[in-house]
Amino acid sequence: MTSVSLRAMFLGYGNVGKALRKMIKERGEKTGLNVKIEAVVNRSGIMLEDSDNFIKNKEGGPIDALNMTNPDVIIDVSSANYESGEPSLSLYREALSRGIHVVTANKAPLALRYGEIMDLAKKHSASVGFQATVMSGTPSINLLRLMRGLKIVKIRGILNGTTNYILTRMHQGLEYDQALKEAQALGYAETNPEHDVNGFDAAAKLTILTNFAMGLNLSIKDVVFSGIENIRKSSLKGKKVKLIAYSEGRFAKVSPEEITKEDPLYNVEGVMNALDIHSDIQEVVIMGPGAGPQNAAFGLFSDIVLITKGLI
Amino acid sequence: MTSVSLRAMFLGYGNVGKALRKMIKERGEKTGLNVKIEAVVNRSGIMLEDSDNFIKNKEGGPIDALNMTNPDVIIDVSSANYESGEPSLSLYREALSRGIHVVTANKAPLALRYGEIMDLAKKHSASVGFQATVMSGTPSINLLRLMRGLKIVKIRGILNGTTNYILTRMHQGLEYDQALKEAQALGYAETNPEHDVNGFDAAAKLTILTNFAMGLNLSIKDVVFSGIENIRKSSLKGKKVKLIAYSEGRFAKVSPEEITKEDPLYNVEGVMNALDIHSDIQEVVIMGPGAGPQNAAFGLFSDIVLITKGLI
Repeated sequence: MTSVSLRAMFLGYGNVGKALRKMIKERGEKTGLNVKIEAVVNRSGIMLEDSDNFIKNKEGGPIDALNMTNPDVIIDVSSANYESGEPSLSLYREALSRGIHVVTANKAPLALRYGEIMDLAKKHSASVGFQATVMSGTPSINLLRLMRGLKIVKIRGILNGTTNYILTRMHQGLEYDQALKEAQALGYAETNPEHDVNGFDAAAKLTILTNFAMGLNLSIKDVVFSGIENIRKSSLKGKKVKLIAYSEGRFAKVSPEEITKEDPLYNVEGVMNALDIHSDIQEVVIMGPGAGPQNAAFGLFSDIVLITKGLI
Repeated sequence: MTSVSLRAMFLGYGNVGKALRKMIKERGEKTGLNVKIEAVVNRSGIMLEDSDNFIKNKEGGPIDALNMTNPDVIIDVSSANYESGEPSLSLYREALSRGIHVVTANKAPLALRYGEIMDLAKKHSASVGFQATVMSGTPSINLLRLMRGLKIVKIRGILNGTTNYILTRMHQGLEYDQALKEAQALGYAETNPEHDVNGFDAAAKLTILTNFAMGLNLSIKDVVFSGIENIRKSSLKGKKVKLIAYSEGRFAKVSPEEITKEDPLYNVEGVMNALDIHSDIQEVVIMGPGAGPQNAAFGLFSDIVLITKGLI
């Protein structure tokens, strides 16, 4: 197999970034992919070597790092900033304008400025891979890439593992507070779980997914969302409720919905995610893990592969 | 979007072939795909024009048609011949040797001679698309193409809609003979349902899937299979049984298995198909229709798109 070489710059370097580095080293060669990490930039500065531990070699921010290395692809594993999308957004603008590809696990820039980013990429023949923003390494965005020629008419998804875990445990008899605490103890929920439990995280994912599936340019501000924080065990009355992300055309909402036994999403339990895609030819459902450093790293890895193949 | 032009030759011209012709005309342009049908060959002879109804223009077989037109891609929608794989197999050998791609909905050649066909394709830099042989238009083979870099360790699938329909109806209270008759009346089972109910069809699909997922060269003769023809309502005792296609390494078998409520395949009902892929990083399950002319045509269509993109 001929090997494709790519020079990469990482923005951010937490668990996902380190898992991706390991994956590239362990799995790159047999996939025909030779990714060389030329720079890592995070809040503290710039590293210009390939190391598992961040070592600051230079002062500077993302654009400085870009100018120092001129990579083929930017890998964004920085944390989401839903206020401004920064510093990712400015880096994407600069990189895409130079024809440099972007592969991201960070939802914020695409949930805020999808159309602008895609237009810029198209104008400069650069690619944007964003599988890891929705369902992590479980093909969702990339599954849709296999479905060219179909018209997607409706999407339903369970896109947030934290809330699905809590709701699953409440259906099994726990109170909301017990279930949340358990999720926190298991690392499924953050200390401040607000963005998960109020539906915001699912809404960000739904924004990206709907834009891609239906060729739209929604912002997260266009998505109506409500969460599970006011659901109590007593109000469930034994019914199964899931936090459903739903879109049909330009209408997109996230809300808790009662699910019947016949629903293909009925058996999606715990931290599992699922996506139910309705097209003009067929309905397809995919389920899999929606989080985890290894999974997110795999989502990024498969985007890099697809970019080298020309599918993205 | 720049359009890619391909000249195609069809082997066989039944419902699937005609549905694909329609799809190419209706959806090709907006997908950037311009497929020109230069020849159709079936048992009665050769058509050298593009028409919804077969019109015999010339006497001759598949190789004659190939020599007359020199297409870029062969589309095999002929019926399966599990004795010899002919006439498909000889056509593939000739076409692939000339660097002509093959896209097929016909399981027989790949279930009999997977390794030979793939080696020949590789040697001559030709591609073989075979999404439509397993789960029709629901991404199964092509979903695995998104997962390069993962090691697939185990596969479990419901790959035959006829038997799943019969078992679903038996679970709902019908006797085997009633359920089979109903499936026949609805067009889900053939007049002679032998290859479906005895597990052979699922075994052919499992052979292809396992070879592709695990890099093997099994023949259908290597797959142990049993069917549902001896299952009676009384022996089910209310339990849910599914015909499960299972492989792990070189071991591949098809057999009826009792399914528990927690199993991701539990809710796969009626003619739906499903595939449960276990890799060294994640478990992913996809469900969707496994048959129908439109669905099979879409499976072929997406293979043609992926060949032009270089992913296959």
